[in-house]
Amino acid sequence: MKKNTKVNAAILIIGNEILSGRTQDTNTSTLATWLNSIGVIVSEVRVIPDIEKTIIDALNILRKDNNYVFTTGGIGPTHDDITAQSVSKAFGLKYEIHKEAFKILEAYYKPGEFNDGRQKMVKMPENAELILNPTSGAPGFSVENVYCLPGVPSILKSMLGSLKNKIVGGEPVLSHTISLKTVESEIANSLTKVQDQNSDVEIGSYPFFHAGKLGVSIVLRSENQSRIDNCISQVLEFVREKNIEIVDR
Amino acid sequence: MKKNTKVNAAILIIGNEILSGRTQDTNTSTLATWLNSIGVIVSEVRVIPDIEKTIIDALNILRKDNNYVFTTGGIGPTHDDITAQSVSKAFGLKYEIHKEAFKILEAYYKPGEFNDGRQKMVKMPENAELILNPTSGAPGFSVENVYCLPGVPSILKSMLGSLKNKIVGGEPVLSHTISLKTVESEIANSLTKVQDQNSDVEIGSYPFFHAGKLGVSIVLRSENQSRIDNCISQVLEFVREKNIEIVDR
Repeated sequence: MKKNTKVNAAILIIGNEILSGRTQDTNTSTLATWLNSIGVIVSEVRVIPDIEKTIIDALNILRKDNNYVFTTGGIGPTHDDITAQSVSKAFGLKYEIHKEAFKILEAYYKPGEFNDGRQKMVKMPENAELILNPTSGAPGFSVENVYCLPGVPSILKSMLGSLKNKIVGGEPVLSHTISLKTVESEIANSLTKVQDQNSDVEIGSYPFFHAGKLGVSIVLRSENQSRIDNCISQVLEFVREKNIEIVDR
Repeated sequence: MKKNTKVNAAILIIGNEILSGRTQDTNTSTLATWLNSIGVIVSEVRVIPDIEKTIIDALNILRKDNNYVFTTGGIGPTHDDITAQSVSKAFGLKYEIHKEAFKILEAYYKPGEFNDGRQKMVKMPENAELILNPTSGAPGFSVENVYCLPGVPSILKSMLGSLKNKIVGGEPVLSHTISLKTVESEIANSLTKVQDQNSDVEIGSYPFFHAGKLGVSIVLRSENQSRIDNCISQVLEFVREKNIEIVDR
């Protein structure tokens, strides 16, 4: 099967705790790294509050504009967990007990422990597909191209394995980084020339300051290794001419 | 002057490096924490790529829906820094050399060092207001309700001081956290009752796993301390009844 060359996804982070600054989101980085590794380009991330209408509106835009949407957060047992009912409304589906999920959690908990609060976690859009959770039992779910994952980073990470066969990426995006001991303005013009001659390679320039070192990382991204290699040669050429020290390549 | 009770803001993170997973964004957390402390509610965060049309479209939506928009990234000297020209287009303004910014950077650099690359950093929408940069010279800028900041976290942080007098918040949102040694499903029903009786307090429930401890943090947020206090009493009542250990309050 020939893969589409461009497959894109949006990430929808649902959670007041990120918007208040209380919690540092790390799920974006986890999901984006994983998606890029399987050839899915992340086109947009949105962080929105636990408000039903906001979730529905964002979902309905993002699921039309992207091959995949991944949501994080809001699938636990408490009153502020409203992702499953919001997804149901976005798709016009019933919000009901999912029989397979019910069986999983009934077996997961000790007799008598699968209480009302926990039973909320098996209410999902009708006919949702489950995303198994090897860490804490309660599964995520998907409807069409929307995949709903939990907000707790360690649980989310543990669930990516069971998504592997469901997400079909395009050509993986290859990447090469050259780190230089310089400042951006020293190389800006030369780098613009390289970009102009290589419009099919995404060239990023990122200043860094760490371990007492100040420098610039040039990141070259493309599905095509030979085009990246071509850019590397051109970058190394101006680096040599300008007598810039290479920190890492 | 009576403050508006609700002042909101959106954060627009401009940068391919976040979408590729290469860089972990921390500016959202920095800005959100600061904005909340001055009474500005963050209603939405978007992370978008370095694509002019995408930046313009997002800006034009967010600046209408919010009292303030803060952008991060894309104001450096390289070809992938296109925030200033995109903001100019979004507002239909000329993109030109800002005289005051030019003077600042001319004085900042040694004679002969204020080269073409660096001069790009003083091109801005006409009549933009500067946001001074005590770390690395090159200022940010604002146009109407849109404030453009750099992507490098340490530089962004150092510029918030000069924004203090420009951003007028509403009533600060007060917050109180009670951390319990329990799991969410044990308290879900009780917490729903508290939320139902206190619709003007935002009650969040967040599982945590750290330092070998597993528990739930209940976060109570409101502009009104007495309403928070009322919720605290109600939470502590069910905590006592259920004999749940309090980790922190």
